[in-house]
Amino acid sequence: MTSFDVIGGNARGGTLYGIGVGPGDINYLTLRAAALVRDVDVIAFFAKRGLQGNSRGIVDPLIEKGRPELRLEYPVTNEIPPEDPSYQEQISRFYEESVETLSGLLRQGKSVGLLAEGDPFFYGSFMHIWRRLEASFPIEVVPGVTGMSACWTRANAPITWGNDVLSVLPGTLDEDQLRRRLTETDAAVIMKVGKNLAKIRRAVDAAGLLARAIYVERGSMPGERIMPLSECPDGDGPYFSMVLIPGQGRRL
Amino acid sequence: MTSFDVIGGNARGGTLYGIGVGPGDINYLTLRAAALVRDVDVIAFFAKRGLQGNSRGIVDPLIEKGRPELRLEYPVTNEIPPEDPSYQEQISRFYEESVETLSGLLRQGKSVGLLAEGDPFFYGSFMHIWRRLEASFPIEVVPGVTGMSACWTRANAPITWGNDVLSVLPGTLDEDQLRRRLTETDAAVIMKVGKNLAKIRRAVDAAGLLARAIYVERGSMPGERIMPLSECPDGDGPYFSMVLIPGQGRRL
Repeated sequence: MTSFDVIGGNARGGTLYGIGVGPGDINYLTLRAAALVRDVDVIAFFAKRGLQGNSRGIVDPLIEKGRPELRLEYPVTNEIPPEDPSYQEQISRFYEESVETLSGLLRQGKSVGLLAEGDPFFYGSFMHIWRRLEASFPIEVVPGVTGMSACWTRANAPITWGNDVLSVLPGTLDEDQLRRRLTETDAAVIMKVGKNLAKIRRAVDAAGLLARAIYVERGSMPGERIMPLSECPDGDGPYFSMVLIPGQGRRL
Repeated sequence: MTSFDVIGGNARGGTLYGIGVGPGDINYLTLRAAALVRDVDVIAFFAKRGLQGNSRGIVDPLIEKGRPELRLEYPVTNEIPPEDPSYQEQISRFYEESVETLSGLLRQGKSVGLLAEGDPFFYGSFMHIWRRLEASFPIEVVPGVTGMSACWTRANAPITWGNDVLSVLPGTLDEDQLRRRLTETDAAVIMKVGKNLAKIRRAVDAAGLLARAIYVERGSMPGERIMPLSECPDGDGPYFSMVLIPGQGRRL
């Protein structure tokens, strides 16, 4: 192996590729992901109604016009809360239908690359497809740079030092749980900020960590915003926002 | 942007690049990392005495013979425990000397790429260099795929679902701490297994999680081994081993 050109690619027919496309900047795609995006017969991706699909947008520069694509459009997004049984029912049905379409392509002998933001096995929609297909078809999963790695990199904030414990917490936890878990960890990443921003800030403050907390919105993507959580205006954070509490472990 | 060739590279003189080279497989390098490895004036890397240096080994296919390299060799590795003041003193002195050498190159106007396994800001030696130089020189950090992402990918074990809490725990924690933290989380990654393997297994068992625990050694690297933790033979795990407890959050 001496250059990119001979690394990767060679997508096999009838195989599903779960391609981690990283946090948002195309430069943070892996060589394997880039080679597969260019090589698979069909590019598949999830998208919200009316939007381009974030993962699809990330790899746009690698896809020539006319390539076969499969857009898998969520039937619901924010209209119904995820705890609602009707949300779960609609999303499950959507995954079932997506799996049927994907299976059809795989049975025809196509290689299919299903794009996943960040890393496919870390809070990914891809996992819901994977668990339905893994017994029936060959699958290769390509790990990716996570959104949280991009956020702490862009925030210039090494997240864990020495023997720090890191807790990755969904912002959906209730305020007291969040506060308690923040008190018991050395470093933290709070995901799924969105509508939970005000609650998260109260929990971080109650845990005595507000001075260390950093708010990152759209890390490594266009429209990136980084600021101390204490200075972040009230209101909803967008989906791609996180709160970071960098660890203070051993400096050598 | 229409091909890899126009993405990245263009290393600037006098700049330090902290290049995350990912978990071990060169295919999991990012485009930015690969472009910089080929473009910087000097490739710098940490290595243990007598060994090639793991990060340097990963990018070997991208480096032509004769490229200027800077090998930064740890004065101690396993001979002294990290808690020992003499270890800390020797390592600190080593970082100080490394920083002097790197500063000299940067002041000469060289671009220097310091390789980091996985992600530079996630338990990285690079951070100890970064904190000493960030006020004096321009630095670009390139995030990478973490070792843990490679491990759960290779183990075919999606790590977090829905609103799972993930705890990243150093295996150096004492047994009771480990057990307690494992009891309170949905998913876990235990790093720095090495000499702590027997203790970790006892803690995982005491937390009632042995049936779910996976042992991964050298994930995505030559010599990879993956097995249930319960079947893992006693003895020391190597440095590049982890224990994974995949979450059981919402399946849709």
